[in-house]
Amino acid sequence: MLTQAQNDRLTQVGSGTPGGNLLRRYWQALCPAGEISAEHPKKRVRILGEDLLVYRGDDGSINCIAEHCLHRRASLFFGFIEPGGIRCCYHGWKFDADGSCVERPFESRTHTGLCMPAYPVKELGGLLFVYMGPDPARAPLLPRWDVLVRDDGKRTIVVLPVHDCNWLQIQENTVDSVHTYYLHGHMSVVKNLPTLGQGRFFYRPIESYDWKLCDWGVEKTLVYGGDKPEVEIRPPLIFPNILRIPEGPVEALHFRVPIDDTHTRIFWVGLKPGAPGKTTFEYSPDEPIGDGEKALQTFYGQDRIVWETQGVVFDRSLETLGASDKGIVMFRRMLAEQIDRVERGEDPTIAVVHDDASNEMIKFVSATRPRYDDERHVFDET
Amino acid sequence: MLTQAQNDRLTQVGSGTPGGNLLRRYWQALCPAGEISAEHPKKRVRILGEDLLVYRGDDGSINCIAEHCLHRRASLFFGFIEPGGIRCCYHGWKFDADGSCVERPFESRTHTGLCMPAYPVKELGGLLFVYMGPDPARAPLLPRWDVLVRDDGKRTIVVLPVHDCNWLQIQENTVDSVHTYYLHGHMSVVKNLPTLGQGRFFYRPIESYDWKLCDWGVEKTLVYGGDKPEVEIRPPLIFPNILRIPEGPVEALHFRVPIDDTHTRIFWVGLKPGAPGKTTFEYSPDEPIGDGEKALQTFYGQDRIVWETQGVVFDRSLETLGASDKGIVMFRRMLAEQIDRVERGEDPTIAVVHDDASNEMIKFVSATRPRYDDERHVFDET
Amino acid sequence: MLTQAQNDRLTQVGSGTPGGNLLRRYWQALCPAGEISAEHPKKRVRILGEDLLVYRGDDGSINCIAEHCLHRRASLFFGFIEPGGIRCCYHGWKFDADGSCVERPFESRTHTGLCMPAYPVKELGGLLFVYMGPDPARAPLLPRWDVLVRDDGKRTIVVLPVHDCNWLQIQENTVDSVHTYYLHGHMSVVKNLPTLGQGRFFYRPIESYDWKLCDWGVEKTLVYGGDKPEVEIRPPLIFPNILRIPEGPVEALHFRVPIDDTHTRIFWVGLKPGAPGKTTFEYSPDEPIGDGEKALQTFYGQDRIVWETQGVVFDRSLETLGASDKGIVMFRRMLAEQIDRVERGEDPTIAVVHDDASNEMIKFVSATRPRYDDERHVFDET
Repeated sequence: MLTQAQNDRLTQVGSGTPGGNLLRRYWQALCPAGEISAEHPKKRVRILGEDLLVYRGDDGSINCIAEHCLHRRASLFFGFIEPGGIRCCYHGWKFDADGSCVERPFESRTHTGLCMPAYPVKELGGLLFVYMGPDPARAPLLPRWDVLVRDDGKRTIVVLPVHDCNWLQIQENTVDSVHTYYLHGHMSVVKNLPTLGQGRFFYRPIESYDWKLCDWGVEKTLVYGGDKPEVEIRPPLIFPNILRIPEGPVEALHFRVPIDDTHTRIFWVGLKPGAPGKTTFEYSPDEPIGDGEKALQTFYGQDRIVWETQGVVFDRSLETLGASDKGIVMFRRMLAEQIDRVERGEDPTIAVVHDDASNEMIKFVSATRPRYDDERHVFDET
Repeated sequence: MLTQAQNDRLTQVGSGTPGGNLLRRYWQALCPAGEISAEHPKKRVRILGEDLLVYRGDDGSINCIAEHCLHRRASLFFGFIEPGGIRCCYHGWKFDADGSCVERPFESRTHTGLCMPAYPVKELGGLLFVYMGPDPARAPLLPRWDVLVRDDGKRTIVVLPVHDCNWLQIQENTVDSVHTYYLHGHMSVVKNLPTLGQGRFFYRPIESYDWKLCDWGVEKTLVYGGDKPEVEIRPPLIFPNILRIPEGPVEALHFRVPIDDTHTRIFWVGLKPGAPGKTTFEYSPDEPIGDGEKALQTFYGQDRIVWETQGVVFDRSLETLGASDKGIVMFRRMLAEQIDRVERGEDPTIAVVHDDASNEMIKFVSATRPRYDDERHVFDET
Repeated sequence: MLTQAQNDRLTQVGSGTPGGNLLRRYWQALCPAGEISAEHPKKRVRILGEDLLVYRGDDGSINCIAEHCLHRRASLFFGFIEPGGIRCCYHGWKFDADGSCVERPFESRTHTGLCMPAYPVKELGGLLFVYMGPDPARAPLLPRWDVLVRDDGKRTIVVLPVHDCNWLQIQENTVDSVHTYYLHGHMSVVKNLPTLGQGRFFYRPIESYDWKLCDWGVEKTLVYGGDKPEVEIRPPLIFPNILRIPEGPVEALHFRVPIDDTHTRIFWVGLKPGAPGKTTFEYSPDEPIGDGEKALQTFYGQDRIVWETQGVVFDRSLETLGASDKGIVMFRRMLAEQIDRVERGEDPTIAVVHDDASNEMIKFVSATRPRYDDERHVFDET
């Protein structure tokens, strides 16, 4: 249970908020690289409460600046892309890739130092990432997650519909290990859903659970009893807002990117091992949850139902946690500590990569091994 | 004319508000019983600003608990109905009909005393009623209104569309006796509307009006002059939010149930004397008022026009009352006094039934008798 | 750059706000006269944050009163028009053209002095105008703008769609002389748009610009260089919220009428010289801006893109003005001074006409003359 002030601190994403300041110290997924092309060189993206323009420069570079011109605030989306930058359609003020105002027509003196917010963009695995932190020179490396780097298969990016809720409740679900039993396992079996295959895997008695903090975030272990006692080591929650998960043969990343405090965009990236192929992207249709019948057909939809019904910004002063929520508590504490660090002027320490050697390819594995008898544990209840 | 604070006190319905506390001391109509079936055992209902789940238990009982699980606030609408209660789809916490948490999977210790808000439900005449007061043991009896109890005819329930306004302006209309002359009578005659038949009855010179407080609410008398001088005794406004009215051959009840401060749901129940039949329910289509041409075709639509154009929450600091509004003033005073009582920890005294003998069938009659010459009264004006 | 308080003062239009008080000292365009007819005698209009009813009286007069009855606030839109006024449909209270309550059925005593807000309406050139100032006796004359008075051509009124932004950013565009170069000229040429003809005229090097305060508002001069150096004298911005502009052969007026702080309605009136014809009116379809491709096809659409993307209420604390914005600064200062005057209880002095002799027909001309060499001026930049 959190106070309202604690909840605000963890959930708010806007410029100048403690939580927003932390999120800005991480590269955030912006959009599929394929959305920005010679034919459609401009795209408006709202992210962390800021309205940005991503555009392909005259030289093919991908740039990202604040959407609204610093002069009279017209949208640069309607501007003219020219060699050396973009020109506002209203009065022709021109800005280079760094946001510097390099031309002010109809003005006698050049006002030196006029500058729009501009953020560095990098592409990896077909996805664009932006760094919105205060000092790009202090930016960590863009982590080379295996799913984005591997070339031994076909990579697909899916842009999911906008979720009308805060990012944190989506991310908390990732460290909420035991939810798989009822939401995915029991649900699939009881309703005989298309998710039944993997659902059966989750529908085994859980004997114990464990979480450990690690350099990437939070590691998750689950011990199953029943006919085939096993220990499942899931890939860690990647701090602050990434899920890394195997989905059958596919290795997947889910980027949960805050649009603002009350909306979240998810980019799903999957690598299906096999013949290498060109990375493609697609849009997942937005199906309103409604009575849930359609949403229940997929794991994602099952999760979405609980994310969104927790409230637009889940009011954590109303929750009642148990021991099985220990991972959530650990993740929140990690998040609060990292927010505190940034507030003190320090750098975050979790899931940041600063040397190329460690960044060739960041691999995660999930593994299942037999559970030995001395690891046995039984809950009192059920 | 009320101050803003007075207006808030009378109109607010949420949990913990003085007005909301009073309304919670009365059984409120929840939904047609037929909406909860073996095939569709769960329904979300927003009422008095609270989100509730009504569900049919495994044993056929109808239960009503808060919609969101006390653990991590997922909606129980997606939960599993089991013997002994409902289980949340997220982590499997289970709650019995009283809202008590009876199972917490994956937890070593049973947390005693965990409890969801749960409210008793009763069925009468095909309609479900809920008691949301603080102590069900102190609940009055569910009043056995004649329209719900009579078996000498066919009973129909109509669920009207959601009205985008506060409940009180709808209910004030009920004690506003003289409005029938212009809104229904004059309107029907001048525009030659389908409501002309009953409209002509109302379109007679009103010589005087009177209201009296009674145990049920406010009694209304109207004296007509003209060719056929008559005294009309209408059924009382039933406190706090019910209208009882004859509609031609049909005897009707209108339950005006606050969804929240700014939305109201109306359940219409009509008993048409004749061969007994099974009670049925239907939904009235939602026709936006627009230019009113369609709404004007029915008495209900004529009323709706004035209810909704008074504002979302009618600002009573802007009104200018006259002597013909005396019934409204009396009703507001009664409402304020009953709110005060509940605030002092006392029970409400109006329209509450505590003994079965008085509750066999609560009948109301409307009657029209000749007006005698010595009852004559003429307004100065018109 | 303005402070938030300064911005509020200039942009707020509601009753009792300093800016709203100034706007109420000017006749404001209400709707085309043709919208009020014997067949459709009533129309609801929201203007300056007030909900008004315009109706054609029994005697053919056009009247304008507050929409909601002072008794119980039902909308008078559903009222009955009768000789001598309009009668509320709810309880029959009747109000004359001045808003005085002249009949209160079912009330013994006439309450003297009950009065609804009512505003004088005048018709000119097929458009209705309303004066919402505190004392109609102090109202200036309705200015007889040439476009509304001339009878040597065909006059057309176009009701544009509602703009989801404050009026002031639309009006500032009018005194923003240099925007024509990029937004209309460059845009038309670069994209080869249907606006190319007039677009080329604007797409000439601007050598200098000048603004002068005048009795009507702000005069605008622009000096073009290039192959055909010319001085263009545009008609003044008419204070506070009118644009007067030649559009090819058509002489046009644009009335930018605040609906409320965040919505603006524009009435376009054009006089095409030629055979006199009956004034007609039409509605311009509402095309969402979207990616702008459709909006860019017209000058109006090009302007709309920048008006609306500046924000719902353009936050002028975020702007960065240059020398070319001098006209805007002058206009804002004029607006602030006139607001101050009215706040001190004085009359506004700009664009007010008090004697018929000056009001026969108020003509404006735009003119282009050669630019002489000693008027030459070159900006450092570009």
